[in-house]
Amino acid sequence: MSVAPGPVDMILAKRAGKEHTAADLEAFLSGYVAGNVPDYQVSAWLMAVCWRGMTARETAALTLTMANSGDVLDLSALPNTVDKHSTGGVGDKTTLVLAPLLAAMGGTVAKMSGRGLGHTGGTVDKLESIPGFRAELTDDEFLAVARDVGVVVTGQSKDLAPADGLLYALRDATGTVESLPLIASSVMSKKLAGGAKSIVLDVKVGSGAFMKTVPDARALGEAMVSIGRHNGRNMRAVLSSMAQPLGHMVGNALEVEEAVACLRGEGPADLEELCLVLAQEVLEAAGLPATRAALHGAIGSGRAMERFEAWIRAQGGDVSGLGNLERAPDQWVLRAPRTGVVAAVQALAVGRAAGVLGGGRSRKGDAVDVGVGVELHAKVGDEVTANDGLATLWHRGGRGLEPARRLLEEAYEIADAATPEPLIIERGIGSSG
Amino acid sequence: MSVAPGPVDMILAKRAGKEHTAADLEAFLSGYVAGNVPDYQVSAWLMAVCWRGMTARETAALTLTMANSGDVLDLSALPNTVDKHSTGGVGDKTTLVLAPLLAAMGGTVAKMSGRGLGHTGGTVDKLESIPGFRAELTDDEFLAVARDVGVVVTGQSKDLAPADGLLYALRDATGTVESLPLIASSVMSKKLAGGAKSIVLDVKVGSGAFMKTVPDARALGEAMVSIGRHNGRNMRAVLSSMAQPLGHMVGNALEVEEAVACLRGEGPADLEELCLVLAQEVLEAAGLPATRAALHGAIGSGRAMERFEAWIRAQGGDVSGLGNLERAPDQWVLRAPRTGVVAAVQALAVGRAAGVLGGGRSRKGDAVDVGVGVELHAKVGDEVTANDGLATLWHRGGRGLEPARRLLEEAYEIADAATPEPLIIERGIGSSG
Repeated sequence: MSVAPGPVDMILAKRAGKEHTAADLEAFLSGYVAGNVPDYQVSAWLMAVCWRGMTARETAALTLTMANSGDVLDLSALPNTVDKHSTGGVGDKTTLVLAPLLAAMGGTVAKMSGRGLGHTGGTVDKLESIPGFRAELTDDEFLAVARDVGVVVTGQSKDLAPADGLLYALRDATGTVESLPLIASSVMSKKLAGGAKSIVLDVKVGSGAFMKTVPDARALGEAMVSIGRHNGRNMRAVLSSMAQPLGHMVGNALEVEEAVACLRGEGPADLEELCLVLAQEVLEAAGLPATRAALHGAIGSGRAMERFEAWIRAQGGDVSGLGNLERAPDQWVLRAPRTGVVAAVQALAVGRAAGVLGGGRSRKGDAVDVGVGVELHAKVGDEVTANDGLATLWHRGGRGLEPARRLLEEAYEIADAATPEPLIIERGIGSSG
Repeated sequence: MSVAPGPVDMILAKRAGKEHTAADLEAFLSGYVAGNVPDYQVSAWLMAVCWRGMTARETAALTLTMANSGDVLDLSALPNTVDKHSTGGVGDKTTLVLAPLLAAMGGTVAKMSGRGLGHTGGTVDKLESIPGFRAELTDDEFLAVARDVGVVVTGQSKDLAPADGLLYALRDATGTVESLPLIASSVMSKKLAGGAKSIVLDVKVGSGAFMKTVPDARALGEAMVSIGRHNGRNMRAVLSSMAQPLGHMVGNALEVEEAVACLRGEGPADLEELCLVLAQEVLEAAGLPATRAALHGAIGSGRAMERFEAWIRAQGGDVSGLGNLERAPDQWVLRAPRTGVVAAVQALAVGRAAGVLGGGRSRKGDAVDVGVGVELHAKVGDEVTANDGLATLWHRGGRGLEPARRLLEEAYEIADAATPEPLIIERGIGSSG
């Protein structure tokens, strides 16, 4: 039996561009999590990884080690477990539409979703704008709802991939965040621990996204697909544009309403299109029927909406008020300064506007105001006449209003002509593997 | 006034291959020494330095910051201060010859020398084999001896470049030792703090040296010359071979005797040659007369030996027994296994033999046995007849003898023919600057 190399050996090997074995990586990282390998050795190793990169095998092994550092959900008793992950966008309420749609198509979505930091809350925060909705379930309840309804989404009560949190904090403090294998393994460690068999990744591209260019986004998508494949998951990735917010609503209750509209076949075209594409990809990956017609049928027949209501009821929510959730009482309308065509609605600025109104959290544990947000009346390519309403802020007055107004003004650009970018930039990444 | 970048900014800048300003480097490193910048950020930065390198200006600034982290000797009241540094070799007693020779030529050598770890002791340990010699002097005594005699060598009572010690320990633990600018700045930080105006560097090359190849050694020499120049010192570097030990003696008292022989014009040719070359280089750099004839004259006339004796007396040493210092009582002679020519005397193995006999220290604070060592009767190129004495171990029995014998046997190689390598591989590095 060979002895595992010590931390300095690991650093020197990576510095020299060598490939670590899965066992060596596991020993190194477990030593770090256990407190036996100090920060200063791991940070030197991280910088060597930024320098030399990691092979697909190394990245997969690193990710599995991180996934196994905490609780791992066992979903093996559930049929056709499917999951979606998005790298984060403004107005992205796809999970709320996709989860019941996938359930209607024969999949099971059993998901733990973190209450992340961001301009609006996470999926769980959005769901909590529905009166009575319980995001915290026992393990038995979680599995029962998944089995009975095909959809369950709870707060992250389990300690999923704690090594990732530890490593991310160190990366943040040591200039080693930017590294494709490290970014990919960070995302995928939580997905592997989440337990779904088939996963579709929605990699956002554009000024409002983490990945600014298509080649970078494609590389990230491919790296994450590779990690999942190496660990026995059915994987797909899609690249979608985050040049402007998705749909018309940005804010927690506002987004739930827009998702409900989409499930009723009355949603905005971009949101519906992205949900259909993501559904088709992950269903195909899972080996389930996934024609475009069948997906349209699941919405048109009401089966998807029926799954949504069953899900919300199963987690204690009151479905009678859906479509009419309580919003913040005050409104402020941004008006078009001139006649022309909307050339830009900067996603980041709109997201920050919702954030300063109180719709998100900048620190763990902060409360989220589910009633505030931004409603976009005009999006890129829309013709507008001077003084038309471009967007509405739903607010409660207070300190955030003034910066929110400025952000919204900065977000909009009116020009003589504009061509909207396609929403779906690339799909089917991983389908030929 | 601009604000100094934080540690993460420094790491990101170096990661991106950017050049730090002297002020930014000073702030970063001072923060580390003060305990305000944690190890894990410095180690990530060190790995980024290994990756991206440092410019000559950065390296010079880093070195100055390290030099200024502790005491800095002020030798400005002394004329023509000169110093020599060697990257470390077996049997290297050049300081003992060079210091009085330079004093005889008009230079002043006022040197603090660490009691380093190694196969034999450092210069101070060697000097302490002379009865009565006092290595610890007060500041006033140090300057008085330097002024009156032109030579003084003491133990390192001052805290010279403590940042270097701190940084070196971190590099050792994080796989970041190998880096030309970091190696060069580590050496030069102590030289800058040592205060001499003109410095010659003896960079050893070969299997027994830190630098294994001529290009690597030349690059190190050039980097160190550049650092000194940027900080206002007159610099030269020489590359010399460390394929076999220098001279015939390896051990503390043994080396003092050989140095005395050399000062009397009776030393081995290689030792004398190296001392003359180093003396010529540093005297030229200092702008002092330095012809070969003048140097021979300083030895032949007895002036260099006179300076040596004056120096030893000034530090309390008894010069009456020089040339007859006490050696360990027992001898073991390695005999030639066959007739032929000595093809190799591995410097590292000979050094380790002296070390295991007790001639060096492997931990700080260990006592050094000044009487033990190795006397080499035959060196590379010498013809030997079977059973001739190749080398003698001076020992006191004990556990070290057996491994010392094996090491010495391994060190020698007898062949049918052999060509000795030239001792001086390159000289005058820095002379055209």
